[in-house]
Amino acid sequence: MRVFNFSPGPAALPTEVLEQARDEMLDWHGTGMSVMEMSHRGKAFLSIAEQAEADLRELLNVPSNYKVLFLQGGATGQFAGIPLNLTSPDSVVDMVNTGSWSKKAIAQAKSYVKVNVAADAGDPYTSIPPVADWKLSPDAAYVHYTPNETIGGVEFHFVPDVKTAPLVADMSSTILSRPIDVSKFGVIYAGAQKNIGPAGLTLVIVREDLIGRARPETPSFLDFGAMAKNGSMLNTPPTYAWYIAGLVLQWLKRQGGLEAMGKINQAKAEKLYAAIDSSSFYKNPVAKDARSWMNVPFTLAKPELDKTFLEEAKKAGLVTLAGHRSVGGMRASLYNAMPMEGVDALVSFMKEFERTRG
Amino acid sequence: MRVFNFSPGPAALPTEVLEQARDEMLDWHGTGMSVMEMSHRGKAFLSIAEQAEADLRELLNVPSNYKVLFLQGGATGQFAGIPLNLTSPDSVVDMVNTGSWSKKAIAQAKSYVKVNVAADAGDPYTSIPPVADWKLSPDAAYVHYTPNETIGGVEFHFVPDVKTAPLVADMSSTILSRPIDVSKFGVIYAGAQKNIGPAGLTLVIVREDLIGRARPETPSFLDFGAMAKNGSMLNTPPTYAWYIAGLVLQWLKRQGGLEAMGKINQAKAEKLYAAIDSSSFYKNPVAKDARSWMNVPFTLAKPELDKTFLEEAKKAGLVTLAGHRSVGGMRASLYNAMPMEGVDALVSFMKEFERTRG
Repeated sequence: MRVFNFSPGPAALPTEVLEQARDEMLDWHGTGMSVMEMSHRGKAFLSIAEQAEADLRELLNVPSNYKVLFLQGGATGQFAGIPLNLTSPDSVVDMVNTGSWSKKAIAQAKSYVKVNVAADAGDPYTSIPPVADWKLSPDAAYVHYTPNETIGGVEFHFVPDVKTAPLVADMSSTILSRPIDVSKFGVIYAGAQKNIGPAGLTLVIVREDLIGRARPETPSFLDFGAMAKNGSMLNTPPTYAWYIAGLVLQWLKRQGGLEAMGKINQAKAEKLYAAIDSSSFYKNPVAKDARSWMNVPFTLAKPELDKTFLEEAKKAGLVTLAGHRSVGGMRASLYNAMPMEGVDALVSFMKEFERTRG
Repeated sequence: MRVFNFSPGPAALPTEVLEQARDEMLDWHGTGMSVMEMSHRGKAFLSIAEQAEADLRELLNVPSNYKVLFLQGGATGQFAGIPLNLTSPDSVVDMVNTGSWSKKAIAQAKSYVKVNVAADAGDPYTSIPPVADWKLSPDAAYVHYTPNETIGGVEFHFVPDVKTAPLVADMSSTILSRPIDVSKFGVIYAGAQKNIGPAGLTLVIVREDLIGRARPETPSFLDFGAMAKNGSMLNTPPTYAWYIAGLVLQWLKRQGGLEAMGKINQAKAEKLYAAIDSSSFYKNPVAKDARSWMNVPFTLAKPELDKTFLEEAKKAGLVTLAGHRSVGGMRASLYNAMPMEGVDALVSFMKEFERTRG
């Protein structure tokens, strides 16, 4: 029996996608082999790779002057890859700190470049500093931010206007959750394991004028120029993860694309936040205009019941609800693959738990 | 119908492994989720990860003073990762050139360190320069070589004695093909997509005294020390590829381990080379003592028949036999997952093709 899996990542995938992957596991489209066994340079895999890119471009309406790269190393890899590709050692970059992932990006960037922390929401991270107050550098190589903080559950519901510097965004936990205007960004990057596909694939969408500036010491597999030139196949790409991502993208198209997903995701999140806010037992600390649609942390009025809550939720088929070890409590991640039925089941469970234990 | 897939990588996987992955796709061991959907920090995935490491250690008899890391980026990633972890900018490293992959490793290392090409087999690569002639540096940080060249089909059937410097080996296309004495190496690394599992996973086996020296500019996800400290989970690892690798390792144990695999692999290779050598139509250019058990390149006396050979082979269920674009002709890769029946079928096909077209 399938459960409702609220994991923050690697996260639930659409059941339809897994069924298709299962059915194609030993023989993809009559080739007599699994996608896992295909040469990345053969016609069969190239057709899979190209279709995935085309579907992604269609879903996100990626302008033609952007390259889409399918890489390895995760968003953490790009914490190094972005400064290596876009700066020289004496560059300044502006970085905004709204939580744990911003902080990690900042720490890694400092190994390569001068970092100006243009704004810092302060720990605990529960809000977004007003953009008008960001202390941007006149000559920043880029401005980096984290549109959704997976751990704190803090999300930008707008794209900040940073004037001239290229905007760089770690969209790992929000990409594909709604339409975005890609043309406002210099680089968008994302680990796949939340809304795209399996862990081990990293998506980079980069404006062409930012390509070709990598430092000589950039590992070749992180070099945007070398990868763009080789169709993300300078070396063997993570082929199976790319294929599963392609199945997810086709599933998204069948759901009606990102307009439709955005509406569903908003409705899912609002339902859960409403349940939390209407209760005196559950609490979410995040400012209402910065609450994430994707990751909803909440605490119980009686933290001594955390373990019981998790155990009973699991019995009800609601799993991976523990909050991050750094913040405790609970966290429900509501990525694209979480259906409304999962949210309904969670809300019902929470009400019943409050009634009987609260 | 499954084919015999001679792909050099990503390569064939054991059918049993794919069947198990298929059967577990929607619900791994009653968890109600796919391995792809599991948090890497949850008990279920940790049990998978730990079992895979234990099985690998058992199969390769990895000494306790070595760490086993499950990373991303491929062997190409380690072409940068090795010098970043093991050298300072003024170090000297000795590197042996026996083919295309050696050359790529050398080119990337030059971005980080002084490279002494200690021996060069010369293009076309068909032999191994005698170790006694290698011009090793007295103070090399390490000696790097490529035990099996996937493209040229040149393989070391011994471990070179390089005295005191740590020996570093790109074993991508030979690891797990036979027993090896890990204690002779400082670092062994391998992309998974030939003999371990799906593309996107990179195995590193590193002696503990070589850990903890990474340069400050090492991207954290390539830092052996940071990764060893975090059980290869500094960031989200390629979980599904790790799981499939675990299934492959269990399959290898069921086959009798690496002693048994080594005998089978040797027998497979000898059968194919014997067919080539006993023919005046097929030819393999590699010195007999350096012929690879894993990758067998061969040419036809009438290269104008290459296309016909490939087409008819495909009709017979023998696929991905085209040689690398840099060398032409044919290449049959005979990794662990290729059964003797596949070699028999190929040899029969070759004989019949020679009889009717030769």
